[in-house]
Amino acid sequence: MKHITVTLTQMLTLMACLAGLNRGLSAQESEAVKSEAETFTIETITENLDVPWAMTFLSENTALVTEREAGSLYKLDVTSGQRDVIQGLPDILRDRPISSGIFDVRAHPNFSENGWIYMAYGVGTVEGNGLAVDRFKLANNTIQSRERLFEATPMIAGKWHFGGRLVLADGYLYISTGDGYDHSALAQDLSAHAGKILRLHEDGRVPDDNPFINQQEALPEIWAYGVRNPQGMALEPETGVVWWNEHGPQGGDEINRASKGTNYGWPIITYGEEYGGGPIGDGITHKDGMEQPTYYWVPSIAPSGMTFYNGSVFPKWQGNAFVGALALTHINRLVIEDGRVLHEERLLADKGWRVRFVEQGPDGYIYFGVDDGMIMRLVPSQ
Amino acid sequence: MKHITVTLTQMLTLMACLAGLNRGLSAQESEAVKSEAETFTIETITENLDVPWAMTFLSENTALVTEREAGSLYKLDVTSGQRDVIQGLPDILRDRPISSGIFDVRAHPNFSENGWIYMAYGVGTVEGNGLAVDRFKLANNTIQSRERLFEATPMIAGKWHFGGRLVLADGYLYISTGDGYDHSALAQDLSAHAGKILRLHEDGRVPDDNPFINQQEALPEIWAYGVRNPQGMALEPETGVVWWNEHGPQGGDEINRASKGTNYGWPIITYGEEYGGGPIGDGITHKDGMEQPTYYWVPSIAPSGMTFYNGSVFPKWQGNAFVGALALTHINRLVIEDGRVLHEERLLADKGWRVRFVEQGPDGYIYFGVDDGMIMRLVPSQ
Repeated sequence: MKHITVTLTQMLTLMACLAGLNRGLSAQESEAVKSEAETFTIETITENLDVPWAMTFLSENTALVTEREAGSLYKLDVTSGQRDVIQGLPDILRDRPISSGIFDVRAHPNFSENGWIYMAYGVGTVEGNGLAVDRFKLANNTIQSRERLFEATPMIAGKWHFGGRLVLADGYLYISTGDGYDHSALAQDLSAHAGKILRLHEDGRVPDDNPFINQQEALPEIWAYGVRNPQGMALEPETGVVWWNEHGPQGGDEINRASKGTNYGWPIITYGEEYGGGPIGDGITHKDGMEQPTYYWVPSIAPSGMTFYNGSVFPKWQGNAFVGALALTHINRLVIEDGRVLHEERLLADKGWRVRFVEQGPDGYIYFGVDDGMIMRLVPSQ
Repeated sequence: MKHITVTLTQMLTLMACLAGLNRGLSAQESEAVKSEAETFTIETITENLDVPWAMTFLSENTALVTEREAGSLYKLDVTSGQRDVIQGLPDILRDRPISSGIFDVRAHPNFSENGWIYMAYGVGTVEGNGLAVDRFKLANNTIQSRERLFEATPMIAGKWHFGGRLVLADGYLYISTGDGYDHSALAQDLSAHAGKILRLHEDGRVPDDNPFINQQEALPEIWAYGVRNPQGMALEPETGVVWWNEHGPQGGDEINRASKGTNYGWPIITYGEEYGGGPIGDGITHKDGMEQPTYYWVPSIAPSGMTFYNGSVFPKWQGNAFVGALALTHINRLVIEDGRVLHEERLLADKGWRVRFVEQGPDGYIYFGVDDGMIMRLVPSQ
């Protein structure tokens, strides 16, 4: 090993240089970014979070934010960046190396009237774990009136791929569950919750018109199946359709519309391949009775949280989907028309940010959280 | 200006080095290229053409090839690279700076029985020109029995954007025409052929069920309108649908399905912008009664000739569309399902080849021509 000798003066110069670089990066963040359809600046709301995973607005300037692995829930003032810890959390599985913790948090669409907040998180032990979904209210930043709405069955010895996104739409609660990574066959097994899109009434009851409600052995909550690791799910406001995305294996990340009773094919069909190369299963991309994705990415962008934009401050983005990307760090903008993807743009790809969620604020700005611990927003600029 | 002095030895070394580099590039062409779904080598069939623009197979090993600007037509043996000049060409407009010459050439699907060949080319003068389409037969490499099937009206003082692709399908002849660049308003004018997709019987008669056949002032050949510069058009064999692509202005290159009577919006709506920036027209992307593209590219790839693949030697490419790209030099592979684009891959993007056409051979190989004057093919490899 080679040793480098530096003088104190050299070291001070280096440190000054690094400080300057840091200032340079901060300044760059507030410069206008001209993208294909809109020009914006980036504002940092808060920093030093431990992997923010989800965000939901309670009022014009107040949001809840989760830290997945730390299993923390905060109330965030987006004007000041002030964070308050929410107390009274339930028991949350957050034992390394299990990739668990708190996943999504969603305010009910009529939160201002009914006060309900929905939260998805990991429960159980290393040997047997799965996803749970509760709803609760808040008083003095403390959880009240908590109700268990859902708990995955069977519990499995999973380490990764919990899924964990929630959508509230038209009185229904949609839940995305992952395949547990080592348990991918369960995605085709209707007697397991793993690897599914589920649909409940928003109070946890099972709707009578769910597709497998009368099928012996099938779990009645299942809405769609053949799912791998759905870390993004969102309502398309214009159509009422629920979309979800998921990590493929190496390549073959997908975006899909969650159609009733549909089999999305994992792990039988996929556009990805085994890590390190080689086919998965039979190495096929099509099979009768299994749905093709709406759109897919190769190589993997590693999609995470997503939202549809319907605000007024970015008029040319109306109707577009925004998907966070982890591996190919960026925000993925998809132009969507009649259920098909017309175009893809990769925003902020030069920043190196692993984007965990994208959320539209009541102000119409686009908020997003990154693994570096920041929550930022895009604000229109000229 | 700085002068560089080199010795003879240095010069010889440099030349040897360049020669080695050249050998290196040739060798690289025959190395296996691993793409997302298929692995292939690239074989050069012929070189030193002056912008090959179209290719159509007459038999297993024989094809016709056009040079657009030179206005030449050749018979090419794809096993030997041997080219024979076709004699007896009609009068073709090929006066610089008009971007005319011979455009597409297509053998009839039953060529082996009826011997018909279809050709699109520019006619007229600098002051008044447009697209013409003939069909003819060949004897001793000479054009025989030539019939004029179509001639654009009105003739316009156009310099660019002739369109000029042909598709023969189910007894019909589809013709793509450009907007003449300086005459873009004609694309919305049903009394002009410019900026349209046209549909004839394969003998030139106008079909009774064309959409504007009973509309006073409208030209009866029009199948679809609101088109800019359609340099690629192809039949999707599985569905019988005709697809076409076109250059947008700066950005907003499109791929579309040619639906009967449909207005594709140019120059009213577009995802592109004026060269140098700024909106086109009202700067809008949507308008009632105007169709959205199936898919679009921003920034421009500058799409050219296209084909759908249904051969057996590249099984994982079946059903995919392949589109040549000029500006962003590559072959664009589009995975298509039920009329939507699921995925895009850019093949050979590192080669710097402006790809003018992509054609499937009877052998299932994919043939393509580039502005550097080569015709090459992709052959499966392990």
